[in-house]
Amino acid sequence: MQNDSTESAIENYLRTLIAAGRAGERLPSTRALVARFTVSPLTVQRAVQTLAHLGLIETRPGSGNFIQPQRVIGRADFSWQTTALGPARNSLNAVGTAMALEATPAIAMHSAYPSEDLLPIRLVRTALTRAARGRASIDRPPIGGLADLRAWFASELDAQASARASGIAPDDVIIVPGSQSALTSIFRALAQPGDAIVMESPTYWGAIAAAHQAGLVIVPVARGSAAPSAEALDDAFESSGARLFYAQPHFANPTGALWSADESRAILDVVRAHNAFLIEDDWAHDFGIDADARPLIAADTDGHVVYLRSLTKSVSSALRIGAVIARGPASARIQVDRTVTDLYVSQALQAAALDVLTDPGWRTHLTRLRSALRARRDALAGQIAAQLGPDALTFLPKGGLNLWVRFDDRVDVRDLVARCLAAGVSMAPGSEWFPTEPPGSFARLNFSGPHPERFGEGIAIVARELSAR
Amino acid sequence: MQNDSTESAIENYLRTLIAAGRAGERLPSTRALVARFTVSPLTVQRAVQTLAHLGLIETRPGSGNFIQPQRVIGRADFSWQTTALGPARNSLNAVGTAMALEATPAIAMHSAYPSEDLLPIRLVRTALTRAARGRASIDRPPIGGLADLRAWFASELDAQASARASGIAPDDVIIVPGSQSALTSIFRALAQPGDAIVMESPTYWGAIAAAHQAGLVIVPVARGSAAPSAEALDDAFESSGARLFYAQPHFANPTGALWSADESRAILDVVRAHNAFLIEDDWAHDFGIDADARPLIAADTDGHVVYLRSLTKSVSSALRIGAVIARGPASARIQVDRTVTDLYVSQALQAAALDVLTDPGWRTHLTRLRSALRARRDALAGQIAAQLGPDALTFLPKGGLNLWVRFDDRVDVRDLVARCLAAGVSMAPGSEWFPTEPPGSFARLNFSGPHPERFGEGIAIVARELSAR
Repeated sequence: MQNDSTESAIENYLRTLIAAGRAGERLPSTRALVARFTVSPLTVQRAVQTLAHLGLIETRPGSGNFIQPQRVIGRADFSWQTTALGPARNSLNAVGTAMALEATPAIAMHSAYPSEDLLPIRLVRTALTRAARGRASIDRPPIGGLADLRAWFASELDAQASARASGIAPDDVIIVPGSQSALTSIFRALAQPGDAIVMESPTYWGAIAAAHQAGLVIVPVARGSAAPSAEALDDAFESSGARLFYAQPHFANPTGALWSADESRAILDVVRAHNAFLIEDDWAHDFGIDADARPLIAADTDGHVVYLRSLTKSVSSALRIGAVIARGPASARIQVDRTVTDLYVSQALQAAALDVLTDPGWRTHLTRLRSALRARRDALAGQIAAQLGPDALTFLPKGGLNLWVRFDDRVDVRDLVARCLAAGVSMAPGSEWFPTEPPGSFARLNFSGPHPERFGEGIAIVARELSAR
Repeated sequence: MQNDSTESAIENYLRTLIAAGRAGERLPSTRALVARFTVSPLTVQRAVQTLAHLGLIETRPGSGNFIQPQRVIGRADFSWQTTALGPARNSLNAVGTAMALEATPAIAMHSAYPSEDLLPIRLVRTALTRAARGRASIDRPPIGGLADLRAWFASELDAQASARASGIAPDDVIIVPGSQSALTSIFRALAQPGDAIVMESPTYWGAIAAAHQAGLVIVPVARGSAAPSAEALDDAFESSGARLFYAQPHFANPTGALWSADESRAILDVVRAHNAFLIEDDWAHDFGIDADARPLIAADTDGHVVYLRSLTKSVSSALRIGAVIARGPASARIQVDRTVTDLYVSQALQAAALDVLTDPGWRTHLTRLRSALRARRDALAGQIAAQLGPDALTFLPKGGLNLWVRFDDRVDVRDLVARCLAAGVSMAPGSEWFPTEPPGSFARLNFSGPHPERFGEGIAIVARELSAR
């Protein structure tokens, strides 16, 4: 009954009474509520029913509504589970700061998600409403996803294919509920527990956690503002026997770094030479600023690249839709894993996503988004240079949502982040993005958050806390 | 632009021309299409844009629209992947017949999903439309799910708790995108690859596939119309060292069998004695006919029961929402696995689900559903008795969506199913529900499909194909 303001008002009023009252206490009658809020008895009843279904109100027909007694029970004993469960694959801290904060601080630069004004909200609302009215709210989709949505993802890549055309077909596309589920399926499907996987360092914390979940051993290769060197990658494959290399070639999270065309070719050659897979996470496909993401899979003919992309960040977190593109037996194996994991993705979300992507307004939105991201990136970079010194910003990225900042090595970043948060500014500690020990003191500052006008103020707080050490 | 009928008509017309034409051929001009369909140029352009985005049309500004050339490439070579990938956890056949059939046959009794007339479609559409308009189409939900939705699932169980109250709290509930993802997370979180898991036999094929995905060894305990015996279960735990027992105590898939209260108590005692978990899959919670599902977790104080339930089948496959309920360290471990797998579930779907469940129309719908299922179950059971003989139906289930039929042991069920399908009747071969060799020739017939008025005709075809052997 959300969005119906009178009903919400009645609900809130009753919740206040319940919070203040004792179990078993009588609540105002329907008649009294009708009079108080000047609404129909039906509206009152709907509010009461909602709270009754949530276990807050007990309705006794003919006698009235009462505050539901909370049952008191003896303390349960779960200690037997500790032995029964044995070792864990991921710790409780596996979830990064970018996701974990529940309350938004005054000046938020920790989040992984663009703020509302950077999203195509009107398109999303229209598309979801259409999906609600159509068959998409009833029908089960084909297992790999809606044919037209698969075709859209294929054609986006096809448009970028070089003369060495890869010929990606709609059948090569598997629709997934976001890129995190894509990652867990790909790792599980293409490797066995105990296998090695090569990753850039630093890299996305969600990929690190997904590799641990799949029981894989992470072999890091260092990466700064350029791609990892082909020699280092060759070494990593050779020494570990890994068949997988997970990477974000374009506007990598957290650094924003980009592989050049030459670097991409050299890396693909190494991957091919080792009969390995490059898992290309194109997370920032829609977040190019001074450059465009040019997926490596478009230059791959023999199925060495497994590609993933998600709409969650650029369209809406409510439309959790992404795509995996793979060819050959690897594709079949990922599809089986997806089916066993999820069966299929809600057709309502798939239809709404297709609707947004094929609307002419989507291209217009992307153009506006690019300018907005450029302005925000430059504003935050300017504040960092002015207030934290010219060496704080590692480099100015050509796309993405983040700036990667390096502090003096003696700075305890977890402590700094905690103190900044207490002062109203959030950022994410860099350690979360390293599969092994961080080689310095870093933090990730997101410039797509809700307070671009307060960047200066936010960085001033960081500078103050830094010097207060 | 689905649901906009003129636009769809233009799109379909162009698709026909594209299918019939050659690459590079010119398509009718915007002006010609405006005249033909008597619509605005904008509508024509939207249809053209959709097809352009799908890679079917090439638009050359100033010159017109053309059929996009399909690139011809050399045949790719994926053979290197075969060695690189190594052994597979699940075969391509892991997906059951209930999901795999793409086209619906004339008389469909294979599906796992109720037909449209058994779903609360009006409630679903209203709820999705509200979600589209509200904050749910923009905001990211808390990681474990919307607080009110978690409270709803907790209160449903709480209402059934006995004097030995389990005191299930909203925090014990984790919202998941359907029960299949719940299963894969639970198995992965509570066991290590190579561990044993006890399962009823027959049981849900999706649980068998999820156990294989997690690298578990399945230890079957036989089950007919009653629960597995406590002695057999004790034996299975003892000999395998298993810590997990997966079961469907109420209206089990595929048989429809139900554990009695005494059987449930005896089984819970065995589970406790072995410091083990009962994974209670309450898949048919909303499908009681002559009895109600009374979850065992309501009688569990110390976290031995991990409970799962999904709304996919009873509400809509578009609202892929379910819940896992667990207590103690097990709950924390499942939550970490869910976060690493999916991060979170679309808030639009969560808000819409809550809206349906707290609408007074939901209870009314469930009452109507019960009568409809009873009538269908009895009609199909009657036809089976009349046409396949009194011994064909194993027993009349008190709930669920299926009848479990046993044929003469010499019947090759895969062959029978294929011949019936060719004759226009679908059913699911029983072998898919056995973790090991089936002890006889079984088939599952679903009575919630789209053709209840043709049950007689359908069973007549089965009888004919049986005697034609």
